[in-house]
Amino acid sequence: MSERAYSAVPFADVRIIGPFWRERLETVLDRTIPSQHAKLKEVGILDSLKLPKPVPPLTIPRNSHGFTMQVFWDSDVGKWIEAASYALAHRRDADIEAKIDAIVEDLASAQSDDGYLNCWYNGREPEKRWTNLRDNHELYNAGHLLEGAIAYFRATGRRKMLDIMERYVDHIGSVFGYAPGQKRGYPGHQEIELALVKLYRLTGDRRRLDVAAYFIDERGRQPHYFTEEALARGEDPASYWAGTYEYNQSHIPVREQTRVVGHAVRAMYMASAMADLALELNDEGLKRACEALWRDVTTAQMYVTGGLGPKETNEGFTEPYDLPNETAYAETCASVALIFWAHRMLHLELDGRYADVMELALYNGALTGLARDGTHYFYSNPLESRGQHRRWAWHVCPCCTMNVSRLVASIAGYVLSTRADGVAFHLYGGFETTVTLAGVKVALSERSAYPWVGEVCIDVDPEAPAAFDLKLRIPGWAKGATAAVNGEPIKLEPVNGYATIHRLWRKGDAVTLDLKMAAERLYAHPNVRMDIGRAALRRGPVIYCVEEADNPGGAVQTLALPRLSRLEADMRPDLFGGVITLKTRAKRLVSGNGGNGGALYSTEPPTAREAALTAVPYYLWANRGSGSMQVWVAELED
Amino acid sequence: MSERAYSAVPFADVRIIGPFWRERLETVLDRTIPSQHAKLKEVGILDSLKLPKPVPPLTIPRNSHGFTMQVFWDSDVGKWIEAASYALAHRRDADIEAKIDAIVEDLASAQSDDGYLNCWYNGREPEKRWTNLRDNHELYNAGHLLEGAIAYFRATGRRKMLDIMERYVDHIGSVFGYAPGQKRGYPGHQEIELALVKLYRLTGDRRRLDVAAYFIDERGRQPHYFTEEALARGEDPASYWAGTYEYNQSHIPVREQTRVVGHAVRAMYMASAMADLALELNDEGLKRACEALWRDVTTAQMYVTGGLGPKETNEGFTEPYDLPNETAYAETCASVALIFWAHRMLHLELDGRYADVMELALYNGALTGLARDGTHYFYSNPLESRGQHRRWAWHVCPCCTMNVSRLVASIAGYVLSTRADGVAFHLYGGFETTVTLAGVKVALSERSAYPWVGEVCIDVDPEAPAAFDLKLRIPGWAKGATAAVNGEPIKLEPVNGYATIHRLWRKGDAVTLDLKMAAERLYAHPNVRMDIGRAALRRGPVIYCVEEADNPGGAVQTLALPRLSRLEADMRPDLFGGVITLKTRAKRLVSGNGGNGGALYSTEPPTAREAALTAVPYYLWANRGSGSMQVWVAELED
Repeated sequence: MSERAYSAVPFADVRIIGPFWRERLETVLDRTIPSQHAKLKEVGILDSLKLPKPVPPLTIPRNSHGFTMQVFWDSDVGKWIEAASYALAHRRDADIEAKIDAIVEDLASAQSDDGYLNCWYNGREPEKRWTNLRDNHELYNAGHLLEGAIAYFRATGRRKMLDIMERYVDHIGSVFGYAPGQKRGYPGHQEIELALVKLYRLTGDRRRLDVAAYFIDERGRQPHYFTEEALARGEDPASYWAGTYEYNQSHIPVREQTRVVGHAVRAMYMASAMADLALELNDEGLKRACEALWRDVTTAQMYVTGGLGPKETNEGFTEPYDLPNETAYAETCASVALIFWAHRMLHLELDGRYADVMELALYNGALTGLARDGTHYFYSNPLESRGQHRRWAWHVCPCCTMNVSRLVASIAGYVLSTRADGVAFHLYGGFETTVTLAGVKVALSERSAYPWVGEVCIDVDPEAPAAFDLKLRIPGWAKGATAAVNGEPIKLEPVNGYATIHRLWRKGDAVTLDLKMAAERLYAHPNVRMDIGRAALRRGPVIYCVEEADNPGGAVQTLALPRLSRLEADMRPDLFGGVITLKTRAKRLVSGNGGNGGALYSTEPPTAREAALTAVPYYLWANRGSGSMQVWVAELED
Repeated sequence: MSERAYSAVPFADVRIIGPFWRERLETVLDRTIPSQHAKLKEVGILDSLKLPKPVPPLTIPRNSHGFTMQVFWDSDVGKWIEAASYALAHRRDADIEAKIDAIVEDLASAQSDDGYLNCWYNGREPEKRWTNLRDNHELYNAGHLLEGAIAYFRATGRRKMLDIMERYVDHIGSVFGYAPGQKRGYPGHQEIELALVKLYRLTGDRRRLDVAAYFIDERGRQPHYFTEEALARGEDPASYWAGTYEYNQSHIPVREQTRVVGHAVRAMYMASAMADLALELNDEGLKRACEALWRDVTTAQMYVTGGLGPKETNEGFTEPYDLPNETAYAETCASVALIFWAHRMLHLELDGRYADVMELALYNGALTGLARDGTHYFYSNPLESRGQHRRWAWHVCPCCTMNVSRLVASIAGYVLSTRADGVAFHLYGGFETTVTLAGVKVALSERSAYPWVGEVCIDVDPEAPAAFDLKLRIPGWAKGATAAVNGEPIKLEPVNGYATIHRLWRKGDAVTLDLKMAAERLYAHPNVRMDIGRAALRRGPVIYCVEEADNPGGAVQTLALPRLSRLEADMRPDLFGGVITLKTRAKRLVSGNGGNGGALYSTEPPTAREAALTAVPYYLWANRGSGSMQVWVAELED
């Protein structure tokens, strides 16, 4: 790294004042966090921490590979604590805190004398700990519990859970590593690496960073740990259900990886950890590996929504340009994890291409995972539906529920970054903070109706006059941008997606930025065979979809868009608390031309009748009952 | 039935003289039948008939539902015997006959004293016979063994296997039925009904027809047999892995069924049996039910290839117009079974719409299942590929292999039908037979280069002058047809797809028929969302596809067809022994316009470069290594 780049301003230091994220945050605080606790109780996850003897029968049966998702339950608890802690930073809540403290008591009781802590293994098969890293998520669970502990400590100052987890991490550090007698293992599902870096940043304890770096560097080396481990269990390594170590990105060492493969969430968590370590260790090799993976995912393997991973069986990637719409898996967690990664890349190098993808995944691929009501979810996020998709109140694998709640509860942490001599705005939408720039405390207040309106006002209030950079992201989607300081137009010369205003800032300074937001069509690379002859609709950072609720008269798939029909933005205060829809002239394709009635196949093409088309933001789909939906609309010549 | 309609001329009475089917038949005789026997031996299916004690371990492990496909192995043996017997009718073969006789000896040893015969149950769990009709295919196996026995008897006159199976059918008739003490069961996988009707037609034993009619009429009645049977096994009927009795078409009584649902092969076998029984019992209700199902499948649930069943998990139907291309299941067996059903419908009512579908499924959906070399297969038949599909030398569930070989070996049985006063030609392509019409022996010889050329010559040689109808099918795809008798043009006035020539026929009479065959585009009903903006190519009965082998320069999915570009038929003697390909001007879509390089998404549509397109018959795809393929090509305005 040429210079220590920008660091994110922590979410707890940023107040959300804009309507868009305020609404989502309030929903998560009021409805999502409490209802998730109730669900964790209801399905037995909280009780699973109590380790009764004998343990009760499995709630989730073992699948055909012999696994039960119950082994991952600790992680759900960790993620809920993390999400709830972010919520507490916004608004303390004695009831939620009591609930967390009760869980912490259970974890304390469940912890082994040597620090080991896994409720599945301690409760059911303590002798088998650390015998199946490939499948059984011990280190993944530890990572999520650790992230929860750190968040809870940061939100409340209570450190009992953090102490428990530090003891556990001490144990992990003693078990795994390069020293003689240590296991040369690493997680089947990456996650703990991120948590260890967070712990290092909290405590400064360098050993945590070393363990994280060990896990990343050891991954995929030969002899292959998962092969040795399977042999030690008496299993044939060739019978690995996933068929390939690409599934968990351990097929080759991570620095040699240039294609994003396998399970999408694992791939993104790994890449996030690689970016963290590249930064903390100033490791150019890891940075270059991150960049190669980034190029691959963003030029060949990402949905237009920022969704990742087309395939259900591996919950992940297949091959370049394979992006089917109706069967898209595009797990909510994968888009959340892409945001994590993009955010980290942005702090390796302040470049708008990272912020663009972060914003894309945020407003589209991730946000669609949480229903308007805050208590229903999507796990997979198809880009087309016949109406068969329903939002669900819970999921047998509830990973996505807490991933989206922890994202929303911490959204303010993605907004802006600082270094000694500058502040960079990545996202807009109404945020306030006070930061120290050039040694001076500076209050910053950004106000806008983003993402619906591209006009942004930023008040800059230093306690004393101070010279620093104010960097404004000019999104890749903007059809131009203008700005003024205190009413005086200034020239914007964005470099790598950020325009810098350097001046001696004084109390009362006001910056206005006008990002030109136009409704427009996007076309996929023609190698994306599913989208040939089709267009997606975008306005600003928001990707739109066509839903049957707004377009009665048959499946929306029979609507086609004339190449020249103009897209009009239409503010709809009546809809979802106020959103902009897109309206245009379209054609409805109907059969029946030339007397072929309802024939399934005909030598006559369908008839195109005049019709109107209304598109709504994709992230809001399936909030009005079921019906057909699609993102990629067929185009017609006029 | 208003009149006893036309009856098929049995395949053994028809000689194939045309090049198209001659080549396929020779391949099946020389390569497919022998190699299938070798495979049955190699994978343990033949040895499974020998009932050693103790029985060897499972070759095919139980799946997550607790089943192993090994319980269906008897059926594979039955189908191979049937296919081999059809082959013997063409050419006797002592080696094949010895192989069949050896199997018959094993079956004789395996049969229980009471006539029961199932090698799985008799070998492994004799006490469990008839306890799981829903899943374990006992009656299905019996049906296929019975069809094999009938075919072998017809081919050789040897009746040992037929005797075995008649004893077994006696037993089945005693176990199942309406009488007190009998089980009210019926097969989970329909098939035996067809076999029983065949046995009735062979022996005239009316009891066989009654059992078939019982199975069909009892199906889906309440209390539901499969529910009672599951309870008797101590299972929760609600835990049925398929989730619904629609899977095996027992959700409601068959006469109430108006939509084709569930497992496609089961649905087609059931409909075939319904048509058989409608004919034999003169049952108008069953005929009407067949017609409703026919309307549903042909107007909303059939691929343009005659493939059926889009979905893998139920190997079957989903909902109207749900016909995805790349993920199409479209099992070979389902198209073969559609041919069975269409052929039976045609004999309920001589209507060209049945023959059209029969021909479509034959030249496309079914024939694609057998590789050019006669020893490789497709089980599922997608209409699009990225190149990931390979023909396989065998399959863990080898049902399709013997279904396609028995179809080809008996193809001559689908060509023409007679009644006392007439003969009807359904298919063309070079067939000879001698039939009795108006009491006179008449030699018929049809010569043509069908399906490549629409010109057909038929020599009619009665032993004595005789007046009868000669009915010629005028296919739905024909762009007109002309005919002449002894060189004199005659007026064709087709009714329901058949043109009738009635005259006093004399030795040496010659009919010529010219079916106008044009390369043309087909469009799907716009409710088939996957095919919007796309066209399929057809010439005569043959559906075409675009394969990378003929269209280098990238995935064929990037080729688009200008709306007005003309399709040219091109005879290619060098290709697959001589086929007609289609050639046309096209566009190759490439990215890179406007400097957006290889961007995944762009506001600029792809650039369309001039290109040529060559399409080959769909049934021949994937015979030249792997590569991309598609049937539905994107259209562009010029």
